[in-house]
Amino acid sequence: MQQFIKKARELLGERGVLHEEADLIVYEQDGTLAIRGRAYAVVFPRTVEEMSKVVELAYIYGIPIVGRGSGTSLSGGANPVKGGVIISTAWMNKILEIDLANEVAVVQAGVINDWINSYLTRMGYQYPIDLGYQYMADPGSQRVSTIGGNIAHNSGGVKCFKYGVTVNQLRGLTIVLPNGEVRRIGGKEFEQPGYDLIGLLTGSEGTLAFIAEAVVRIIPTYETTVTIIAKFDDLSAAGRAVSAVIASGAVPVAMELMDKLAVEAIESGPYAAGLPKDAEAILLIQVEGSPPGAAEESAKVAEVLKKSGAVGVEVVVDPAIAARIWAARKQAFGAMGYVGPNYVVEDGTIPRKKLAEALMIARAAGAKRGLRVANVFHAGDGNLHPLILYDERKPGEREKAIEAGEEILEACVELGGTITGEHGVGYMKRKLLPKMYTKEEIELMKAIKTAFDPKWLMNPGKIFP
Amino acid sequence: MQQFIKKARELLGERGVLHEEADLIVYEQDGTLAIRGRAYAVVFPRTVEEMSKVVELAYIYGIPIVGRGSGTSLSGGANPVKGGVIISTAWMNKILEIDLANEVAVVQAGVINDWINSYLTRMGYQYPIDLGYQYMADPGSQRVSTIGGNIAHNSGGVKCFKYGVTVNQLRGLTIVLPNGEVRRIGGKEFEQPGYDLIGLLTGSEGTLAFIAEAVVRIIPTYETTVTIIAKFDDLSAAGRAVSAVIASGAVPVAMELMDKLAVEAIESGPYAAGLPKDAEAILLIQVEGSPPGAAEESAKVAEVLKKSGAVGVEVVVDPAIAARIWAARKQAFGAMGYVGPNYVVEDGTIPRKKLAEALMIARAAGAKRGLRVANVFHAGDGNLHPLILYDERKPGEREKAIEAGEEILEACVELGGTITGEHGVGYMKRKLLPKMYTKEEIELMKAIKTAFDPKWLMNPGKIFP
Repeated sequence: MQQFIKKARELLGERGVLHEEADLIVYEQDGTLAIRGRAYAVVFPRTVEEMSKVVELAYIYGIPIVGRGSGTSLSGGANPVKGGVIISTAWMNKILEIDLANEVAVVQAGVINDWINSYLTRMGYQYPIDLGYQYMADPGSQRVSTIGGNIAHNSGGVKCFKYGVTVNQLRGLTIVLPNGEVRRIGGKEFEQPGYDLIGLLTGSEGTLAFIAEAVVRIIPTYETTVTIIAKFDDLSAAGRAVSAVIASGAVPVAMELMDKLAVEAIESGPYAAGLPKDAEAILLIQVEGSPPGAAEESAKVAEVLKKSGAVGVEVVVDPAIAARIWAARKQAFGAMGYVGPNYVVEDGTIPRKKLAEALMIARAAGAKRGLRVANVFHAGDGNLHPLILYDERKPGEREKAIEAGEEILEACVELGGTITGEHGVGYMKRKLLPKMYTKEEIELMKAIKTAFDPKWLMNPGKIFP
Repeated sequence: MQQFIKKARELLGERGVLHEEADLIVYEQDGTLAIRGRAYAVVFPRTVEEMSKVVELAYIYGIPIVGRGSGTSLSGGANPVKGGVIISTAWMNKILEIDLANEVAVVQAGVINDWINSYLTRMGYQYPIDLGYQYMADPGSQRVSTIGGNIAHNSGGVKCFKYGVTVNQLRGLTIVLPNGEVRRIGGKEFEQPGYDLIGLLTGSEGTLAFIAEAVVRIIPTYETTVTIIAKFDDLSAAGRAVSAVIASGAVPVAMELMDKLAVEAIESGPYAAGLPKDAEAILLIQVEGSPPGAAEESAKVAEVLKKSGAVGVEVVVDPAIAARIWAARKQAFGAMGYVGPNYVVEDGTIPRKKLAEALMIARAAGAKRGLRVANVFHAGDGNLHPLILYDERKPGEREKAIEAGEEILEACVELGGTITGEHGVGYMKRKLLPKMYTKEEIELMKAIKTAFDPKWLMNPGKIFP
């Protein structure tokens, strides 16, 4: 280990290698509050070449390696549960190329998701993976998720109903294999011969190879967006309204659902946007198009919502007001502090038509343990994010909250869904994997793992039970 | 082998197993005219269960197996080059479920691509993978590609500029492993935990597992489509116009380019649609939206085309006229018989901004061998389909045509593209794979192959050099 640190310093400089206890404590956790793990060192490569060399170094010494972007994983994915070295992409933060003719951007893995859009907006383009709740309306106030992390978790976000998830945006990857070798997969075109290694690597949670750079698809921004707010006095009616909007043939960009408790939290904080606090649930829908197209679509959606039992429907055309509403939505997780001291947030998916049912199950899973559950999530693609509130000062509440979360995820699987939408299996959900796959399927995944990483050095202790 | 045939008959019935020479001859070729290969038998399972049992049977006897949909592969992918048994999906032709609330269709692998759309149209929905040139305007007149084949090749088609390729439409797969075991991967939701086996299997050309059933995404059809025809007196100007349209921020559904020779062929046949025969190239663009949205977008596209050097631009709103034009486009391959007795068709991709350059290279590759090259292809996503015309009665011409094709594909790679867009590596392009990948990358793919198919029984002789 001393040898590794010495050589890593020669390679990355003094500041590129952290190994003092005071520094390492900062890297003991990711967004998952329930677990900790101490790395021996954290290293900061700046380029593909440096990443390759430092990974090779770890390989030579047989040291486990864990990738880390901004550490927003909710499953312990970026946590060094087995020690080893953390490879941070914090310094690999450059947008390398914007190629409008081929509609792609080439970025380093540590680029913050939102930076691409900040950069593209003035060109009339967007990278359509907007990780809703991690976005900060006040830019620069906080770290947010990186492209590398998005790829490792195949993240979705608020717009995936229309534009698909991260894997749908990828054209090419530069990866570093566990032995330090660099591979360039794909490029600027749509399709590649041979096996789809991009598909395989996306969502593999850093267990197969490191993502160093990515070629991502960018698309033109529509001229106009219109936001529709619908108020419901029944949570399951809001769930059913989502299905009705989809069945109507409308193609909203985003459909977010917030329940009463979530609205209460938001409206108690600095991002209050005047959302109706008396509603049992609010649906927030965005449509886009040319000015007449967006107007027509929003009118259609409003009509469907009224017919589906919405007790109030408001169409917001003013971009300034709409921006405030979306910022409020995106601050929902942070605002939870106003309604409860702690929370566990889960990340399950369900087939969309089971939405109403799943919401009732989530609420009941909390209620029977004396816990409140807030819901604020991507309804369009059936990706639930129940927030189970608890107070860690009360003995046993934390355990009950975790238990309720697991019960909700198991219900997701029973309803035909999955145990994770966009924050990974990681460490926390390993034991749930057999609920989704047979022993033989898991063996097949392990064989693939071994093909990439024969020494099992990459992010050990993750995904597999 | 006799044992296999006997048991397969018990399983599938008399008609479910072909093994007479007269029957087998029919299955000696796929769309690739340059190679033949004779199977020992062709079997026709009807269900996942029957497929599982017949694959298991082959496994027990150590017999190689080759999947076959409609045999439209252009790379020998469905060809039993090493003998063995062909597993045809011709009887697995049922649409099992249309679930509008979750916006998915569940289909058997042998369902013809176009059937899904015929079925969905009346519901206002579509499956967005339209394999342009294989579509027949006169339904029932010919076999066309199957969903299973589309998945095996990760096919694109005319609409992939907007909607992505096959892998972007898949939510779930039921597969049969080489030993006959059945696995269900994914379902009706967007995302799955663990490795993305759907991504890996899509485009794997039947070398990892059989596709038995698929859950595919379906999407609402827009109310209005408008077709724009632009005429150019310079082929490379048409190529540049494609880039200009994209750079303008327009999002056409389809952008097809046809050169003079292709138009001449089309206009000589029964699908003549009055396309201008004096143009050096024609761009055929479709936009969609609400009526005002589509009108606005088509006006914008027409404007860009004029500025990009189009010598004539026509906006076609009448759906009957537009249907005739698209049918003509889709008949282009068949119409080639009017301009030359034989052709080799290639399938390469290039970054879109290299389009004009690639077209010049393709033309030159033919010209220097005294051969004419027609171009008719998906310009929006940079997927070239050069048709190299030759006369097999003239000694040496066939070889020259194949040589020209290889030269074009190599140029695609040099321009930053690939050796196949949607018809696979198969048998014909195996030796080109090392032009795309290093030895180590190919070894990695082989390790994945071995993880799925330890005996290498699945479609032997394909993909790998």
